Amino acid sequence: MPESLTGLKRTNYCGELRAADCGREVTVCGWVQRQRDLGQLIFIDLRDRTGIVQLAFGDKTDREVFQKAFAARAEFVLAARGTVRERSAKNAELPTGDIEIEVEELRVLAKSETPPFAIEEKTDVKEDLRLKYRYLDLRRPEMQRKIIGRHRIVKAARDYFDENGFLEIETPNLIKSTPEGARDYLVPSRMFPGSFFALPQSPQLYKQLLMLSGYDRYMQVARCFRDEDLRADRQPEFTQIDFEMSFVSQDDVMAIAEGFIKDVYQKVLDLEIQTPLRRMTWHEAMNRFGSDKPDLRFGMELTDVSEALKNTEFRVFAGALSAGGSVRGINLKGQADALSRKEIDKLGEWVKSYGAKGLAWTRLASGGETSSYEKFLAPEEAAAVRKALGAEAGDVLFLVASGENKVVFDSLGALRKELAGRFGLIDDSKPCLLWVTDFPLFEYSKEENRFVAMHHPFTMPREEDLGKLESDPGSVLAIAYDMVLNGNELGGGSVRINRPDIQERMFQALGFTPEQAQERFGFLIDAFRYGAPPHAGMAFGLDRLVMLMLGCDSIRDVIAFPKVASSAELMSSAPTGVDPKQLEELGISLLKKD
Amino acid sequence: MPESLTGLKRTNYCGELRAADCGREVTVCGWVQRQRDLGQLIFIDLRDRTGIVQLAFGDKTDREVFQKAFAARAEFVLAARGTVRERSAKNAELPTGDIEIEVEELRVLAKSETPPFAIEEKTDVKEDLRLKYRYLDLRRPEMQRKIIGRHRIVKAARDYFDENGFLEIETPNLIKSTPEGARDYLVPSRMFPGSFFALPQSPQLYKQLLMLSGYDRYMQVARCFRDEDLRADRQPEFTQIDFEMSFVSQDDVMAIAEGFIKDVYQKVLDLEIQTPLRRMTWHEAMNRFGSDKPDLRFGMELTDVSEALKNTEFRVFAGALSAGGSVRGINLKGQADALSRKEIDKLGEWVKSYGAKGLAWTRLASGGETSSYEKFLAPEEAAAVRKALGAEAGDVLFLVASGENKVVFDSLGALRKELAGRFGLIDDSKPCLLWVTDFPLFEYSKEENRFVAMHHPFTMPREEDLGKLESDPGSVLAIAYDMVLNGNELGGGSVRINRPDIQERMFQALGFTPEQAQERFGFLIDAFRYGAPPHAGMAFGLDRLVMLMLGCDSIRDVIAFPKVASSAELMSSAPTGVDPKQLEELGISLLKKD
Repeated sequence: MPESLTGLKRTNYCGELRAADCGREVTVCGWVQRQRDLGQLIFIDLRDRTGIVQLAFGDKTDREVFQKAFAARAEFVLAARGTVRERSAKNAELPTGDIEIEVEELRVLAKSETPPFAIEEKTDVKEDLRLKYRYLDLRRPEMQRKIIGRHRIVKAARDYFDENGFLEIETPNLIKSTPEGARDYLVPSRMFPGSFFALPQSPQLYKQLLMLSGYDRYMQVARCFRDEDLRADRQPEFTQIDFEMSFVSQDDVMAIAEGFIKDVYQKVLDLEIQTPLRRMTWHEAMNRFGSDKPDLRFGMELTDVSEALKNTEFRVFAGALSAGGSVRGINLKGQADALSRKEIDKLGEWVKSYGAKGLAWTRLASGGETSSYEKFLAPEEAAAVRKALGAEAGDVLFLVASGENKVVFDSLGALRKELAGRFGLIDDSKPCLLWVTDFPLFEYSKEENRFVAMHHPFTMPREEDLGKLESDPGSVLAIAYDMVLNGNELGGGSVRINRPDIQERMFQALGFTPEQAQERFGFLIDAFRYGAPPHAGMAFGLDRLVMLMLGCDSIRDVIAFPKVASSAELMSSAPTGVDPKQLEELGISLLKKD
Repeated sequence: MPESLTGLKRTNYCGELRAADCGREVTVCGWVQRQRDLGQLIFIDLRDRTGIVQLAFGDKTDREVFQKAFAARAEFVLAARGTVRERSAKNAELPTGDIEIEVEELRVLAKSETPPFAIEEKTDVKEDLRLKYRYLDLRRPEMQRKIIGRHRIVKAARDYFDENGFLEIETPNLIKSTPEGARDYLVPSRMFPGSFFALPQSPQLYKQLLMLSGYDRYMQVARCFRDEDLRADRQPEFTQIDFEMSFVSQDDVMAIAEGFIKDVYQKVLDLEIQTPLRRMTWHEAMNRFGSDKPDLRFGMELTDVSEALKNTEFRVFAGALSAGGSVRGINLKGQADALSRKEIDKLGEWVKSYGAKGLAWTRLASGGETSSYEKFLAPEEAAAVRKALGAEAGDVLFLVASGENKVVFDSLGALRKELAGRFGLIDDSKPCLLWVTDFPLFEYSKEENRFVAMHHPFTMPREEDLGKLESDPGSVLAIAYDMVLNGNELGGGSVRINRPDIQERMFQALGFTPEQAQERFGFLIDAFRYGAPPHAGMAFGLDRLVMLMLGCDSIRDVIAFPKVASSAELMSSAPTGVDPKQLEELGISLLKKD
């Protein structure tokens, strides 16, 4: 029968006791990390969130206490009262390694069955099992450091924004569903059977309304929701550090965001970030790195070789150029002997997932030069390509040709990162942060046969591009900015449209009739008739920020109870079926399965 | 055409300028509170979240600037650059009343249509209109103080819990729906058509798992959801300050909670709260005040007059007593002349909503004594009742009789509060806080014909009552506690069951088979097999705490975008119908309306 804690009071955490505490009577509580029975002596390592302390039981120990220690097993919950003393055999690897507690009173507060996996710092247990028993996985010191680190990051964020005059204001989680909200989670309502709320994908509209209401500086650590297939680093519910400011320019938002990053790195990791951060336009990022979130910790930049090939008769390249696209390449320096022909072929398959028809390559290996395309080119064309890419003996050149520049950028951008990772070219010593600015306002959607907003329909075009909103929407640039960390988008934002006339033209450019615009965003459009200040803002993806700051590989490691790629939660087996009567009250029924 | 802010940068908030700033060039931004056109002079009161400043335009003003000032209307958004100077006519009621800004440059950043109501400190506009145009209502200084006050309260809460070693850990909002979750909002999932998540009514299970995982001290400002009819002070989504601690007793939780309240009152209202707070058992609170959240700012306590009536032949009283109930009363001192017979009759109707069959009364008015029941009693019985209630000339006595004590308590408890409010008996000078402890573990549900948990099924019974769990569940008291402020429940919590054997007996007492318990709480029951520490916790209702601290009448006033009693949001008109195709993807369809 488990015992109660009544009459005992914890005086110390396990991990905080030191030699200076010798002679003190203390009471500690925690879980048995391990028990060692040496016959006349028993040692128990007791663990709490601060660390481990050794409990010692010997011939001076009361027999009943000794018996309890003898019976203790891994993960039993104990409370122990005793006296701190110097250890005979010190353990330099443990902060408490100089001392132990000579136990006088021991309570077994809870027993434990043998857990399905051991609670250890590092684990090679499959993630599905860890998630099913998340409450045990979360006991591992590695996980505890992450969850505690997350708390410290979020606390630092709130302190920073508060010190800078931002108000944290809660916006609703049960909001209006908008017709284009294909990724909205819907929530039926008992009070309005057949009607639905939506869960927010972001607090965007509400934070803009708060600017219109004069709150001037808003922030929120906001839970957001998206009902879609989950990629490795997405969750159906995720958290943003969201902020918005009135009467400001892009530079003001950037300064606040940089101040935040500088502050949080300093406070949590004791790492100095140099600000202001480097800035790069979207066009430069795409041209040089094939990505709107370039990783600048290594080179291997993209080179446009279209000019060298403008007269080529090689159909693959000529076709791409005549379709308005380009041929671009990267040079993997000095790895020709390390990258086999077979591996190159595999990469050729791999880039197809980015839309490329294939990968053209030249391998300048010590055993001989081979190329997939040079034989189709005039010698001076092949030479010009080599020259443009700075080819030397030992290099591998990769070219992608496509009538769509986006395909060229996506393929080479991904290939560049893949190769850098594979060949250890990335300087991991410090975080690499930059801004990407001047995003296109629109991108063309082939599926919808119209321009869609690259960020969202409330993003302000650059003043100098306003005249092109109707005549050449594809060339209009937005006052939008992303912060990039080590090749990951950490957050993004924009100056918002505050003028009804520009908002109207924006909706027109997106192909909305005034009626459609009213139906979708009616209350926002109405609100803007009553004096909207200039405003701008940004949101950081908290899960990703924590993951990158703490050096984790998966955002699931920085979320206490995450969901897996199917959006299920393995511990509680959610989602589940529900009682048909409950659905009836909501005015809905299940569709019969075919 | 609205102008842009480009090239101008705000230097000051409107409300912060003082005489010491005279001679400085400043730029302010804000909304036009009012414009006064005196012919050669124009004055504009410009408003931002910090207050109001006066802009002045006169004969030295550039004509174009003057024209803009002339055309400015209420709620136009302006940026003004100029020089601070002393006012000729000072306004002592305004913090900035000693100065004005002589404007040199003026930009009209946005115009405004005439708003549906004026943006003023106090308003008598109907709440529905305020909520429809919430973005305008939120501009009122009164509302801004509340939203800013809420931010300060929440920030103080997070600081306090952080300083005391609590980790804020986010728990999921998409969780498993449990069969008894009749008030759960359900969320269909595209990835699992026909299956549902639920939105959490509280993070209860997850925070207990975090204790089991060794996090020791958890807190969260957590959004919670409840799909039910809304009473005046409820919202379908609401926020809790939720915390949980391991290896502690009830006293430890109370000390942390008291420390929080003391700290937040000090920081936000500069008000000293004396701790420790007074404690009162649930039985005492019910017997003396007819309420488990007694308002101790006034007397008028309940008196049990059953003993005086034990032999009465008056059917109404005798019936109540023979059914195991009671007859109790309160004495409204000295108000007999102020409370008419007609008003008493109305109160008699009103108490019926609390289950009472009626209200028995004696009115000792100066014009004569009247009573609804004394004529049915023996003279010595009537005298004994008067004596028990301390009746004197001028008093009004009220009695309620019922076979169910709950009805007696509910009716008289409500009547006591109603009368105290009506006759101004409440000492409003300072907040009145106390703990109510030792709640019954169960209450009997007549509908379900079984005992149900008064708090929830994880509440620990008192150690001395463990033996009665099967034999006399109705008498078992829980280690549960509520904090009460001015007659409102501010928060509550309990010591949780951490022993599988007690949890099993608890489920049995609630009438669950082991299979039902497993189906409902399986993952929690499983988790408790691996070493659950003793733990306890509490949650404060944030919306109510903010409302009471800031002296508001409605929680809607301290929520930026609240919902009304029907659970609708009036601004965006949510909830709404959705596209049938969207429902199809979710595996559901609408029920046809009859």
